[in-house]
Amino acid sequence: MKKPSKVVLAYSGGLDTSIILKWLQTEYGCEVVTFTADLGQGEELEPARQKALMLGIREENIHILDLREEFVKDFVFPMFRANAVYEGLYLLGTSIARPLIAKHLAQIAHQTGADAVAHGATGKGNDQVRFELGVAALEPGLQVIAPWREWDLTSRTRLLEFAEQNQIPVAKNKRGEAPFSVDANLLHTSSEGRVLEDPAVEAPDYVCERITAVEDAPDTPEFIEVTFEKGDAVAIDGEALSPATILTRLNELGAKHGIGILDFVENRFVGMKSRGVYETPGGTILLEAHRGIEQITLDSGAGHLKDSIMPRYAELIYNGFWFSPEREALQALIDKTQEHVSGTVKLKLYKGMARTVARWSDHSLYSEKHVTFEEDAGAYDQKDAAGFIRLNALRLRLIATRNARVAKKG
Amino acid sequence: MKKPSKVVLAYSGGLDTSIILKWLQTEYGCEVVTFTADLGQGEELEPARQKALMLGIREENIHILDLREEFVKDFVFPMFRANAVYEGLYLLGTSIARPLIAKHLAQIAHQTGADAVAHGATGKGNDQVRFELGVAALEPGLQVIAPWREWDLTSRTRLLEFAEQNQIPVAKNKRGEAPFSVDANLLHTSSEGRVLEDPAVEAPDYVCERITAVEDAPDTPEFIEVTFEKGDAVAIDGEALSPATILTRLNELGAKHGIGILDFVENRFVGMKSRGVYETPGGTILLEAHRGIEQITLDSGAGHLKDSIMPRYAELIYNGFWFSPEREALQALIDKTQEHVSGTVKLKLYKGMARTVARWSDHSLYSEKHVTFEEDAGAYDQKDAAGFIRLNALRLRLIATRNARVAKKG
Amino acid sequence: MKKPSKVVLAYSGGLDTSIILKWLQTEYGCEVVTFTADLGQGEELEPARQKALMLGIREENIHILDLREEFVKDFVFPMFRANAVYEGLYLLGTSIARPLIAKHLAQIAHQTGADAVAHGATGKGNDQVRFELGVAALEPGLQVIAPWREWDLTSRTRLLEFAEQNQIPVAKNKRGEAPFSVDANLLHTSSEGRVLEDPAVEAPDYVCERITAVEDAPDTPEFIEVTFEKGDAVAIDGEALSPATILTRLNELGAKHGIGILDFVENRFVGMKSRGVYETPGGTILLEAHRGIEQITLDSGAGHLKDSIMPRYAELIYNGFWFSPEREALQALIDKTQEHVSGTVKLKLYKGMARTVARWSDHSLYSEKHVTFEEDAGAYDQKDAAGFIRLNALRLRLIATRNARVAKKG
Amino acid sequence: MKKPSKVVLAYSGGLDTSIILKWLQTEYGCEVVTFTADLGQGEELEPARQKALMLGIREENIHILDLREEFVKDFVFPMFRANAVYEGLYLLGTSIARPLIAKHLAQIAHQTGADAVAHGATGKGNDQVRFELGVAALEPGLQVIAPWREWDLTSRTRLLEFAEQNQIPVAKNKRGEAPFSVDANLLHTSSEGRVLEDPAVEAPDYVCERITAVEDAPDTPEFIEVTFEKGDAVAIDGEALSPATILTRLNELGAKHGIGILDFVENRFVGMKSRGVYETPGGTILLEAHRGIEQITLDSGAGHLKDSIMPRYAELIYNGFWFSPEREALQALIDKTQEHVSGTVKLKLYKGMARTVARWSDHSLYSEKHVTFEEDAGAYDQKDAAGFIRLNALRLRLIATRNARVAKKG
Repeated sequence: MKKPSKVVLAYSGGLDTSIILKWLQTEYGCEVVTFTADLGQGEELEPARQKALMLGIREENIHILDLREEFVKDFVFPMFRANAVYEGLYLLGTSIARPLIAKHLAQIAHQTGADAVAHGATGKGNDQVRFELGVAALEPGLQVIAPWREWDLTSRTRLLEFAEQNQIPVAKNKRGEAPFSVDANLLHTSSEGRVLEDPAVEAPDYVCERITAVEDAPDTPEFIEVTFEKGDAVAIDGEALSPATILTRLNELGAKHGIGILDFVENRFVGMKSRGVYETPGGTILLEAHRGIEQITLDSGAGHLKDSIMPRYAELIYNGFWFSPEREALQALIDKTQEHVSGTVKLKLYKGMARTVARWSDHSLYSEKHVTFEEDAGAYDQKDAAGFIRLNALRLRLIATRNARVAKKG
Repeated sequence: MKKPSKVVLAYSGGLDTSIILKWLQTEYGCEVVTFTADLGQGEELEPARQKALMLGIREENIHILDLREEFVKDFVFPMFRANAVYEGLYLLGTSIARPLIAKHLAQIAHQTGADAVAHGATGKGNDQVRFELGVAALEPGLQVIAPWREWDLTSRTRLLEFAEQNQIPVAKNKRGEAPFSVDANLLHTSSEGRVLEDPAVEAPDYVCERITAVEDAPDTPEFIEVTFEKGDAVAIDGEALSPATILTRLNELGAKHGIGILDFVENRFVGMKSRGVYETPGGTILLEAHRGIEQITLDSGAGHLKDSIMPRYAELIYNGFWFSPEREALQALIDKTQEHVSGTVKLKLYKGMARTVARWSDHSLYSEKHVTFEEDAGAYDQKDAAGFIRLNALRLRLIATRNARVAKKG
Repeated sequence: MKKPSKVVLAYSGGLDTSIILKWLQTEYGCEVVTFTADLGQGEELEPARQKALMLGIREENIHILDLREEFVKDFVFPMFRANAVYEGLYLLGTSIARPLIAKHLAQIAHQTGADAVAHGATGKGNDQVRFELGVAALEPGLQVIAPWREWDLTSRTRLLEFAEQNQIPVAKNKRGEAPFSVDANLLHTSSEGRVLEDPAVEAPDYVCERITAVEDAPDTPEFIEVTFEKGDAVAIDGEALSPATILTRLNELGAKHGIGILDFVENRFVGMKSRGVYETPGGTILLEAHRGIEQITLDSGAGHLKDSIMPRYAELIYNGFWFSPEREALQALIDKTQEHVSGTVKLKLYKGMARTVARWSDHSLYSEKHVTFEEDAGAYDQKDAAGFIRLNALRLRLIATRNARVAKKG
Repeated sequence: MKKPSKVVLAYSGGLDTSIILKWLQTEYGCEVVTFTADLGQGEELEPARQKALMLGIREENIHILDLREEFVKDFVFPMFRANAVYEGLYLLGTSIARPLIAKHLAQIAHQTGADAVAHGATGKGNDQVRFELGVAALEPGLQVIAPWREWDLTSRTRLLEFAEQNQIPVAKNKRGEAPFSVDANLLHTSSEGRVLEDPAVEAPDYVCERITAVEDAPDTPEFIEVTFEKGDAVAIDGEALSPATILTRLNELGAKHGIGILDFVENRFVGMKSRGVYETPGGTILLEAHRGIEQITLDSGAGHLKDSIMPRYAELIYNGFWFSPEREALQALIDKTQEHVSGTVKLKLYKGMARTVARWSDHSLYSEKHVTFEEDAGAYDQKDAAGFIRLNALRLRLIATRNARVAKKG
């Protein structure tokens, strides 16, 4: 591969990506374009601009974008239509943000004529895969530079030395190792590494920064109503809201009530297990609410089909295949099932739990007339069940008869 | 079909099955054998014997069995190895008990030379299917009588008249309709019908009888350790216990902490939706614990495979196909994956939640050496990730190139 | 259910449905509307009109439709996009025609204000299910009358008596039983029953009427080219043709070369096994050609996904669930994968076989540059494979190490 | 990684692996152990021993094993129980042989105290993956050397120079490039590369060396009977035979009748498409026969389950994951379904086709009594079908009613 001349860097403004920025300039001698996104991680972006300028990036090479609405509308919501959870429990909060970043890296590279992109993910994790598969799918000709897989700055000491040599300011509290590593966006905050590395040891309380400890959550339950249209949340307590606003609101509610903490050991795509603590306050409520509205609006045929393909869909997102033909084909299936997933769910929020307590919809398939224990005015003829069962039992009877016949002969 | 001469009745000793008992005697003129099982429903069985005698059943025709250990060991535990949930949330507490009852109905019929069995399930529900498929699979020649599909006692008034005419004692509190219908066993208590029939209306508090209301649960969390061997729980806090004892103990803990309540609208096999409230205190803890131990002992290949077939497995159990070749084949797959699912999980129980906080095992696949953010002494070469990603990306690059080529030609 | 006053009958003009027609008039005393469709079964439809008139049907109540193009375009082609085969081998030729008939029965009932439909399928087969599920999904309020499940004309003698009593002419060759039962349409001809009922006995040669015996097929192979657009065949040997014309042409070619005979024992939805002989000349060629074009235009991700859901899709069609949310959701998935399935396949037809021998496409994903044994000018770095394999192997190594550790302790 | 001191080489005795042998000695300076296996590829093995000796391998370091029975019994037969085909058509003839070789490489390494294994597969193909995943799963500590990914002998000229310099004899006909690359074993012969690289160009006739051209196959059909026990073929025409003997016999029959040629473009695990011609004479017959016996002995529940997991199972084998927990779990499922797959199939072999024409078994589930068009003496009550259909239709009716209601409101 030839040396790239212009590189778009996914730049947070933090110490690590600032070092990468400088390292790209010195090691590759290339022009660096920075891309910094607001995904709802709760950090100011202006400091990133200042820092980039200070590190010699030209004004026109600094790209700062507020992607919160795009993130929720085009990534989070489609994923929640599937009730996607990875390995039974993980709501994919980091996984789903990566393809969005890859998309804008690729776009900015295209616009600026860059021939490479760079990111700050390590060689052991899933994020490198997600970034690079996304970029490959969108701009197949771009090179990808992953400094953590290349450089020799493999210890904290070496990193700080490099920073010092290159006049990169290091905040006092960044001099030592952080006790764990954090990723945050509008959907979740994840913590992993260091004090969390032994899965037999409980996570310290201070790991969860976003969600109130259950013990400290209010002693009174709160009830909310979430309204859906075609599988997406569109209103809370009757107030129509934009996608990002809805998730923000649910995050506040979830965080207040201690909802959405997960201590988890997962299987990374690169082959090893890792342990993380995930905080997904709004997402946890949203999943419960979406399941609640599907319960009355989704038919069993479509519902069971969705359930059966969900693990594969979640795995694709986890592994970084958002921009793949198979994820898109599964999305077409999922979206098709959501045409009538509209209505309202009432939830009780209390001490770490979000629980559906009622749901109603103009699109409901629930038929009180059919299910009632009372007289049903001929809606359902119980005698039909006899034939239904007898034909479902027929093959079982044939098997039992065969088995008895064979056993006797045996 | 010819008239049966001897019928084994699944007999609870309650009003409904007592009426059925008498109805079989009068309508079919046949000898009735009663079968009453202790599945942990928390009721005395001796009264059932007295009532059967009083209704003219001969001593030797009364079968009363304590099936709690068999229930947990041969039905509940195999199912929990699969992390089975129906439609995302329901732990199948009623579904899994029915094949066990069917098995003993068939066995007693075989032993006593009966030519039919009878049950008290209605023609609208799943239980009729589960009983009858089970019986068909085990004794294909047996007739099944389902009085609720046949008789004309379709109102409360008619039922009470029949009881009166036949000297069946009716307890005062049974004269009116119960506000909802209940099924209970060691795994769960379900409530459905009547006040629960409108899914838009919250369930009244008095529906949950088994589990403490979350608001009233202790304000202090409790920590327990559950130990597994080959996928089955074998000890709590280091004390080895029998299957039924373990589930009983977890039920006490769950009930105390308000754990395991589900308000749910589900799709019945017979084609309609119904709403129920399920209380599964011990099962909810057990599921969380089993997932916790699988996290460190189960490989991703086996784990993702299990996840992908779980919905079908759960559906088979829900629909009554426990004794079917396909459930048995899936069980073989699931059991094969559990060979190393041994170890201990520490859980926090608090205010409606059971959460894994730590797990350890001699069979652990977790490798701190590989995952660490620190120096890993060569366990993992980060450069391998570059090749891994490039080959995974290859087809995505080829697709993107093709799509661009086609678009250009357009 | 109340007696219907107007019934739309799926009427072939043959003896059986003529008897049904008369039986509906006499038994139900209702007005009968006839619906006769040309699905390519190779029979004149005018005689059906004459016979209906003769049996007292009013001119305006006789509906005769040529559905060949609709059949292929909206039913056969969508199904072939999935490479659907039931139980590994059956191309679903009967199954796919039934929902089309159900659709028009429902439409005509709607137009004519009929309150019921009737069909001539027996109570043992799949076709009754397919007709009735289709009608239920499209006009849920319609009654369905299935005379074979109701009447007492259960022997040949009784049927002929009824015909005689009602002045229904019986052709000489219809006086005795046919040696087997036949269904035909543009996609296939099926034969079952009577001489075919013992699966241990070979089917007599005279069963296959549509396809030349392989032994008599030409001794020289024939080569054809089939062109696809978005998964559907659009041209043969460069000549653009309508859907029904393409299938007709392929049928001629297949029949000539002895292609598409299947002797098969299948599992009916109603619970029993049955044996049939299927002739699907054009469909067999079409399936091979479609697979051939997918080989170069479909990515492995989308392709393997399609393969994995195909059996469920085929089962849905076989069982009669064409008009169901789950079939439609699967179709959305399948259609999404076909966007680039365009190009041309060259096939060799010879002595019962249709075999792809070459394929090319502007949408091809095949990259000779990558695959070549020769120098590839840097398209692919073989060293990448080392990292790819090492990371794929990592979990296997961790398992082997764990197993050895446990075994040693054991 | 440290340099290995002793390497076990998968050695065919051919030019390429002889060059590798010498290269290992010179490049790595290590002791080389050769492993040569008879998998039914139809070559003498003694010349390999002579050549190894000549290249300086010590007598005790030469391992030559006849693995034909193990190959068929422990690899081919288990795979055929699943009716495994990759991407709809490929019978996995190369894929299934690789794990067996990996197993013996690992075993010999273990026995001889070697610290590495080496193979002659290129860096572009699947075989490197299959070898190396197998070795990793069985002896996780072994290094793997893949010279084609490492060395600089990247052209024919360089290879021949190296051979000359190292006194490796080069047969005259090996001086030029072969027109295509071949792999053979008892199950199949594959050809790929060079003249086959353009999938739009028909394969030349001379590619197929193993199977008679269909045009030259006998003009008279031949009928055979294959008997199965628990899913495995055990006899031909009533004669009990060992696994390898059965496959050998079927190969002769298939080759004679022109059966089992496939021209195929497939998706390699490493991300590219490749085109191959496969000859699988006996395997093609075996697959047809196995499907034939399953048709009457396997229940639809188990059968459809098998069909639905087959593509994943085939993909695992293709990708090299034979020794993985997920393949083993799937095998447990598959084997469970085969307990009654015993009986005999009669096949017609003629001009490229193997077709089941009859099948019988003591384990048959086929019930002529149920399926018959004639009087069935009460085996089946056609009225049951009405209830069966009505309950299956219930949800479709509810959907249609809901959709109409919503559309009206709309």
